[in-house]
Amino acid sequence: MAEKMVEQITSMDVDFAKWYTDIVTKADLLDYSSVKGCMIFRPYGYAIWENIQKLLDARFKATGHENVYMPMFIPESLLNKEKDHVEGFAPEVAWVTEGGKEPLPERLCVRPTSETLFCEHYANVIKSYRDLPKLYNQWCSVVRWEKTTRPFLRHREFLWQEGHTMHATAEEAIAETKQMLEIYADFHEHDLAIPVVRGEKTPSDKFAGAENTYCIEALMHDGKALQAGTSHYFGDGFAKAFNITYTDKNNRLAHPYQTSWGVSTRMIGGIIMTHGDNNGLVLPPAVAPIQVVIVPVAQHKEGVLEAARALYERLSPHFRVKLDDRDQSPGWKYAEYEMKGVPVRLEIGPRDIEAGTCVLVTRHNREKVVAPLDGIEAAVSERLEAVRAGLYEKALANRERRTYSCTSLDEIKASLAAGGDGFVKAMWCGDEACEDRVKEVCGVGSRCIPFVQEHLSDVCVCCGKPAKHMVLWAIAY
Amino acid sequence: MAEKMVEQITSMDVDFAKWYTDIVTKADLLDYSSVKGCMIFRPYGYAIWENIQKLLDARFKATGHENVYMPMFIPESLLNKEKDHVEGFAPEVAWVTEGGKEPLPERLCVRPTSETLFCEHYANVIKSYRDLPKLYNQWCSVVRWEKTTRPFLRHREFLWQEGHTMHATAEEAIAETKQMLEIYADFHEHDLAIPVVRGEKTPSDKFAGAENTYCIEALMHDGKALQAGTSHYFGDGFAKAFNITYTDKNNRLAHPYQTSWGVSTRMIGGIIMTHGDNNGLVLPPAVAPIQVVIVPVAQHKEGVLEAARALYERLSPHFRVKLDDRDQSPGWKYAEYEMKGVPVRLEIGPRDIEAGTCVLVTRHNREKVVAPLDGIEAAVSERLEAVRAGLYEKALANRERRTYSCTSLDEIKASLAAGGDGFVKAMWCGDEACEDRVKEVCGVGSRCIPFVQEHLSDVCVCCGKPAKHMVLWAIAY
Repeated sequence: MAEKMVEQITSMDVDFAKWYTDIVTKADLLDYSSVKGCMIFRPYGYAIWENIQKLLDARFKATGHENVYMPMFIPESLLNKEKDHVEGFAPEVAWVTEGGKEPLPERLCVRPTSETLFCEHYANVIKSYRDLPKLYNQWCSVVRWEKTTRPFLRHREFLWQEGHTMHATAEEAIAETKQMLEIYADFHEHDLAIPVVRGEKTPSDKFAGAENTYCIEALMHDGKALQAGTSHYFGDGFAKAFNITYTDKNNRLAHPYQTSWGVSTRMIGGIIMTHGDNNGLVLPPAVAPIQVVIVPVAQHKEGVLEAARALYERLSPHFRVKLDDRDQSPGWKYAEYEMKGVPVRLEIGPRDIEAGTCVLVTRHNREKVVAPLDGIEAAVSERLEAVRAGLYEKALANRERRTYSCTSLDEIKASLAAGGDGFVKAMWCGDEACEDRVKEVCGVGSRCIPFVQEHLSDVCVCCGKPAKHMVLWAIAY
Repeated sequence: MAEKMVEQITSMDVDFAKWYTDIVTKADLLDYSSVKGCMIFRPYGYAIWENIQKLLDARFKATGHENVYMPMFIPESLLNKEKDHVEGFAPEVAWVTEGGKEPLPERLCVRPTSETLFCEHYANVIKSYRDLPKLYNQWCSVVRWEKTTRPFLRHREFLWQEGHTMHATAEEAIAETKQMLEIYADFHEHDLAIPVVRGEKTPSDKFAGAENTYCIEALMHDGKALQAGTSHYFGDGFAKAFNITYTDKNNRLAHPYQTSWGVSTRMIGGIIMTHGDNNGLVLPPAVAPIQVVIVPVAQHKEGVLEAARALYERLSPHFRVKLDDRDQSPGWKYAEYEMKGVPVRLEIGPRDIEAGTCVLVTRHNREKVVAPLDGIEAAVSERLEAVRAGLYEKALANRERRTYSCTSLDEIKASLAAGGDGFVKAMWCGDEACEDRVKEVCGVGSRCIPFVQEHLSDVCVCCGKPAKHMVLWAIAY
């Protein structure tokens, strides 16, 4: 079959981790550099990120956010200003200690996140209630010196966006935190076709220095969870630590309330592990660098290339289209674009031309439809939407199949043993000791307290004391 | 007058350097961070950069270039691979020596430029002539630990793009080098309204490791030169140092030929110093975050805000428009948008509404025209083009007034003393000693050997030996 003609990739059932790295490298997404955990984003991988940026940036701007750029270096004394924050990040930062052949008077860390930099700037520019809210975002790379690294999922340097906002009231800041989480959730479900659970982290799993951390959690094909985006509410803790004050409407000095929120190139890992299959990558149309590839069949025959080019001209104002007229067999090309996850393939040969039609093949299910050339734009649109909907349904079905509601630790163990890794729903008393014990006994950690709660029982799955929340548990990437 | 109502800025005649930094800070472009030379790009300053990126990125993609992202860290051994390159950059890099609480086994420098990283990757991915050309670009920040820093013009961390390409032949690589220089030149002249001289650097001023460096040079309002973009041809020197080989059509192993080219946020400094005036910033429409600001006059009167909003709705699909309906006087708003360099101001009040007109004021020359609301889109377009053309003419006239053709060192000194700093055209023998002597005696360094040569005399302006080139000299930022 054509699907194995270009490159062999490991089957996901044989070795999921190998299957994953095979896709990363063979679909030309990333290459390794000589620094561990610092990856090279190749054109095809970077183009996915550019599409993600474009879509998210438009959503951020539509909700009143402005882009800025903060320096990449944080002086040690600045990082140290907020106690919880520095405790969380100091163990994993990279330090610059020399510049221009001289030792530096103070170490500078390469930003692992930029709360401290934004706070220093906000202290300068926020003076009056008229200066609020400040709704800033930046696109940049950050560095976290992790021991274990994995393509897209855990880099020492990764690309992301980080929003940092300041508000006059706690209510407004909390509303912002939740608004941004919902933007992430909607982006995942609509544009990336990845269903997510919206929830709040338990206290042990909050961002360093935050009062609340909200998150979206997705389930990968292998039943492991991926934290796909987070949004934090800080109260006025940082504002106090950084002495950010403003004069309110009653002419009194007050501290503003703060949020931050971010998503990263890790989402591309989520796309691979949610939609990919044994033939390679499968891309949701919204972020696919190539949405439609046109492959001429018997391209040496009269009129074929002309017809393919005419189609390219018609489709390219509406879609990201590639015409592949290289001197290779159609089967070889089919395999290449399957590996690269192009959502729709358009085949056109002499018989199609004679009939005034072409063949549209959707990547995720190999479905072929014959479409008249007349009105082809609408047919392609319809196919792309069919891919999006199909990917979402498939991912949702996988998640539902692998979600277990349990009322005892034994039931958790039995469910995971029978159905494989997945999401576990179980009640929790709110005690960190029980959280730890569930992980120790069943192997699954708390992912979040879902916004949408279910009442599975009155008592904690672990200790039997009264339950406070239903928690979502899983093994996480 | 309204123009001095919002913020006072130093007049450029009194203190050009102070005038410059006043604009940078008071037009809300940059803020200082606690690390010297690492600046904060505020929303208005960053929006100019985003517009520059959008325009240049489209030109790069239209000429077949693809974006990638390389890691920010270069191991010391990798930086050391090309002798001239490391000699040029090692003295001004920042070194990471610790990561995750451990000393690193090898120092990593924060990229000052990424030739070495691209070469390491190219050695992996270029195997056959079918893999050529490789036309890659990246948008990122780079770090150079400079002693003297200045907003936009010389940061320790700055934003830029760096193109890095590989070609099968020297001719193709040289053509690429020149094509990219022409894209930079055309972008400056058309979009930024900054006239530039295209030329080649003298050998003493080439990029570290390059065979040829081409550049565009612009003349600032104060008669000093700004190198606004460079494009380098490397031959196969780096390819040999990094062992990049490919199999050519005749099945022989060969080294590819390389280029790199870059422009940076320094261009924003060029915009300020070319177009700015004593009332603040003046922005060329192509990159202005706000192209048209609508200021309602007597906005409390019936119908005024409605008419202003209707205009906003009509204009915003075509231009970057802002409606300022804050509770401030029109004069106060005029001053603010003059400071911020908004190209066109649209005033609308009760009398205008009655007459079915509005007033359009162009920032650079304060020209007012009354325009019928009917067809206002075309009138605004015409005004924006008038700003662009007006800015270019003014900048060109300044450059011409300050360009001196000289045939002796005494004449250079006398011209600069009489007319002020500027471009000097003078013949040169090609000897570095003469280059140094001109700088020592007259204060002007060689900027480039312009592509468009003039024959001013047969002999070198310095030593009297036969001349090889006409060189452009100036004091440079």
